[in-house]
Amino acid sequence: MDHPAGSPRHLSRRSLMATGVLAAGAVGVAAPTLGNPFAGTPAQAAGATRRITIYAEQLPGGLFGYGLAPGQATVPGPVLEMYEGDTLEITLVNTTTQRLSIHPHGVDYSTDSDGSPLNASFNNPGETRTYVWRSREMFLASGRRFMPGSAGYWHYHDHAMGTDHGTAGVAKGLYGALIVRRRGDILPDKQFTVVFHDMMINNRMAPNTPMFEANLGQRVEWIAIGHGNLFHTFHLHAHRWADNRTGMLEGPADPSHVIDNKDLNPGSSFGFQVLAGEGVGPGAWMYHCHVQTHSDGGMAGIFLVRNADGSMPPGAEEAIHRFQGHTHQQHG
Amino acid sequence: MDHPAGSPRHLSRRSLMATGVLAAGAVGVAAPTLGNPFAGTPAQAAGATRRITIYAEQLPGGLFGYGLAPGQATVPGPVLEMYEGDTLEITLVNTTTQRLSIHPHGVDYSTDSDGSPLNASFNNPGETRTYVWRSREMFLASGRRFMPGSAGYWHYHDHAMGTDHGTAGVAKGLYGALIVRRRGDILPDKQFTVVFHDMMINNRMAPNTPMFEANLGQRVEWIAIGHGNLFHTFHLHAHRWADNRTGMLEGPADPSHVIDNKDLNPGSSFGFQVLAGEGVGPGAWMYHCHVQTHSDGGMAGIFLVRNADGSMPPGAEEAIHRFQGHTHQQHG
Amino acid sequence: MDHPAGSPRHLSRRSLMATGVLAAGAVGVAAPTLGNPFAGTPAQAAGATRRITIYAEQLPGGLFGYGLAPGQATVPGPVLEMYEGDTLEITLVNTTTQRLSIHPHGVDYSTDSDGSPLNASFNNPGETRTYVWRSREMFLASGRRFMPGSAGYWHYHDHAMGTDHGTAGVAKGLYGALIVRRRGDILPDKQFTVVFHDMMINNRMAPNTPMFEANLGQRVEWIAIGHGNLFHTFHLHAHRWADNRTGMLEGPADPSHVIDNKDLNPGSSFGFQVLAGEGVGPGAWMYHCHVQTHSDGGMAGIFLVRNADGSMPPGAEEAIHRFQGHTHQQHG
Repeated sequence: MDHPAGSPRHLSRRSLMATGVLAAGAVGVAAPTLGNPFAGTPAQAAGATRRITIYAEQLPGGLFGYGLAPGQATVPGPVLEMYEGDTLEITLVNTTTQRLSIHPHGVDYSTDSDGSPLNASFNNPGETRTYVWRSREMFLASGRRFMPGSAGYWHYHDHAMGTDHGTAGVAKGLYGALIVRRRGDILPDKQFTVVFHDMMINNRMAPNTPMFEANLGQRVEWIAIGHGNLFHTFHLHAHRWADNRTGMLEGPADPSHVIDNKDLNPGSSFGFQVLAGEGVGPGAWMYHCHVQTHSDGGMAGIFLVRNADGSMPPGAEEAIHRFQGHTHQQHG
Repeated sequence: MDHPAGSPRHLSRRSLMATGVLAAGAVGVAAPTLGNPFAGTPAQAAGATRRITIYAEQLPGGLFGYGLAPGQATVPGPVLEMYEGDTLEITLVNTTTQRLSIHPHGVDYSTDSDGSPLNASFNNPGETRTYVWRSREMFLASGRRFMPGSAGYWHYHDHAMGTDHGTAGVAKGLYGALIVRRRGDILPDKQFTVVFHDMMINNRMAPNTPMFEANLGQRVEWIAIGHGNLFHTFHLHAHRWADNRTGMLEGPADPSHVIDNKDLNPGSSFGFQVLAGEGVGPGAWMYHCHVQTHSDGGMAGIFLVRNADGSMPPGAEEAIHRFQGHTHQQHG
Repeated sequence: MDHPAGSPRHLSRRSLMATGVLAAGAVGVAAPTLGNPFAGTPAQAAGATRRITIYAEQLPGGLFGYGLAPGQATVPGPVLEMYEGDTLEITLVNTTTQRLSIHPHGVDYSTDSDGSPLNASFNNPGETRTYVWRSREMFLASGRRFMPGSAGYWHYHDHAMGTDHGTAGVAKGLYGALIVRRRGDILPDKQFTVVFHDMMINNRMAPNTPMFEANLGQRVEWIAIGHGNLFHTFHLHAHRWADNRTGMLEGPADPSHVIDNKDLNPGSSFGFQVLAGEGVGPGAWMYHCHVQTHSDGGMAGIFLVRNADGSMPPGAEEAIHRFQGHTHQQHG
């Protein structure tokens, strides 16, 4: 476990964040070795401005990725986080030979940070450009109604490579999660970013899809993002969440659906937190697209819930072995 | 009407359930002749454990179904119900020559009840195996937030026939509705299960799709389930519901959308209750997929709202006749 | 600006509506020159009945449209509005040589106003027929739960041309927005109807898609409607909304997702209000389908936010020029 025994789970990470120790946790399983200790963590105070540099790089296999340090690009890119009221100034370094950009969902930006060719907001090959993303709290509209703030499980992606909508950049891996939190939101122990894109998860197909790991009882945050040209539904075995902003209920009168399967279509994103294995125990649990030809075709992966002490639960090795061996062919 | 005149509609069925009389009502229109008087009804007390046997059987026309007694399998299978806190122990008898299983959404289960080949959780041909599904109430996460309970309109399906995702089993009819209720939820007079699967409804095409019937004012519960490879939208004429857990509003501050058309994609499900014909009167009302080629191709059926005394309203016979005669061809 | 300086924005239009001045604003950008001063505005009192005549007409290019006066048909048709409790009596004049009808979502109607051939509810060529749409407030179901009222961002469309589901009528433009408001709802300054239908927006492709215009700070209401055979996701740059009935939050405990991208599939609709350019400034902001081949193929348009005084902001002309010039081809 990566938090002190006996401390409340939802407090531990926040404490570590204050010391800048837990940066790796904030950028997800796909990018465990980041050098920048503040990368991907929310700013420390209300209305803070944080400046980061992101490097867009070409990767093996025709992929492209965003990273927080040179040579560190990943698919998906790092999880970026803010609190409502914070500003994020991103210096995007384009190390590639392609036109590209970074376009966020959910936050405020001027036209010159739109990331779209429409607004001449992109990086030419080799070019460095700064994009500014602002966020805000809800504010009163009239009566009891409020214009919404920025809090949400959002995402960012290229909007300039290949076409004016960044179709090539998105197809090749230029995407990542962006979380804007409301003050008081519960922080997770771990974060997993899952991008459904055409017939792939994080640009991979089974059995090479990510295996996400947590220990029994850890608070795990999933950020699910849709891209591309196909429709998908995200399903997680043995866990469920409220279909609202946080994935939790605001009390007995919260009318939200509780679900374990949700549409995940291009440009959409959502997030939620589960307690790994809570009520069901440890094991190798599947997550997959529930469109049958998609799961059969390779859009499936494993959420490995280890025992609380990190050891392997009975049967999990065998399940992983079956998963790695299976070719998603017709069962004879 | 099947409840005592003058008694509140939402109380009548609950009363009848206590006597075990109303089992047939709980398993839907597709399976009206079940022998087991407790089949498909929620357990009678908090935290109860109920044991049922389900028979997976081959049916005419290449279909497969689940049933609560030998020779009683239907497509879709019986509606299964629990209250939050209940446990359901299902002994699945595989009477077929195919590998198959039963995999639920929304409830808690250990890996050996996962119903997936990944966890070696399935019935070989001729094999009997027990699956245990548990449910729970919401519990405090932190501050005012709660981790969600199990209440919802869920479903169950095969996860092992044909492929490791049960693609053949689902395609051939191995699916059904699972409802987990919260204590105090309003109970319906009637229940209809509607499964949108590729170009079919409950594995049928118009004009052979189910005709669901109710009397004016009866409280009708719809459980809608999506499966297969295509995207769909479920539309019901002349009735609407809140897009939340119950389909009803929790009061004037409930912000839920009210809708009459909803995405129904593979692996997703939702449910709601309407008062048959309320505000619109009796008649032959259509329900259909709103994707035009799907409704034109046969994904449409009739919700027949009879007069309060069960007699046919004016025009309904003619509408049914038109429906049965039409070939869903281009109108000249 | 079209409201008195200094007056609250959400009150101005309501005031103007009382004088019958603002009818054009209620029928959207596509139909700015309506002659009927009450067309498309909510009835003025609780439980009012309003009678309107709608003309279904053939338009150039093989299109068909609905209009509130002869020769005024548009694609989409006029925005129709009611308050919960109101009744709308629509006399539909079919000036065409095709069988057609008008079928609403969200409101109450008897079978003879269903607009479906199933219920023999349509206009033959040249025929005039009256359809009655009623609406209602929520009412108590039991305990704290309410059966939902009619308030919502709905739509209406043909249900009889070409097939029994109106496939040809919908394909050719016979659709429009229907808003049922709850008393006390905030009224907008402007309204835009966006219909995603196959590869088109309002039956047009870029660069001929509608350019919606507002001044900085104006309260703009978007009504988004899906039709046809494809799935879509609606994305608006630099603005977001709560995914609930109004698009605004009912306070800090409102659990709704805040989003800027939403599934927009056949038969579905939603609406929301934004303050044009709020927090991001004026400019040429894109709205588009986020399915990559759809946006690349022409499902994109511009939301032009002018300066508060109506003048053009820096860069907007250039962006519009780029948009009109681009052919949505691959970027070299």
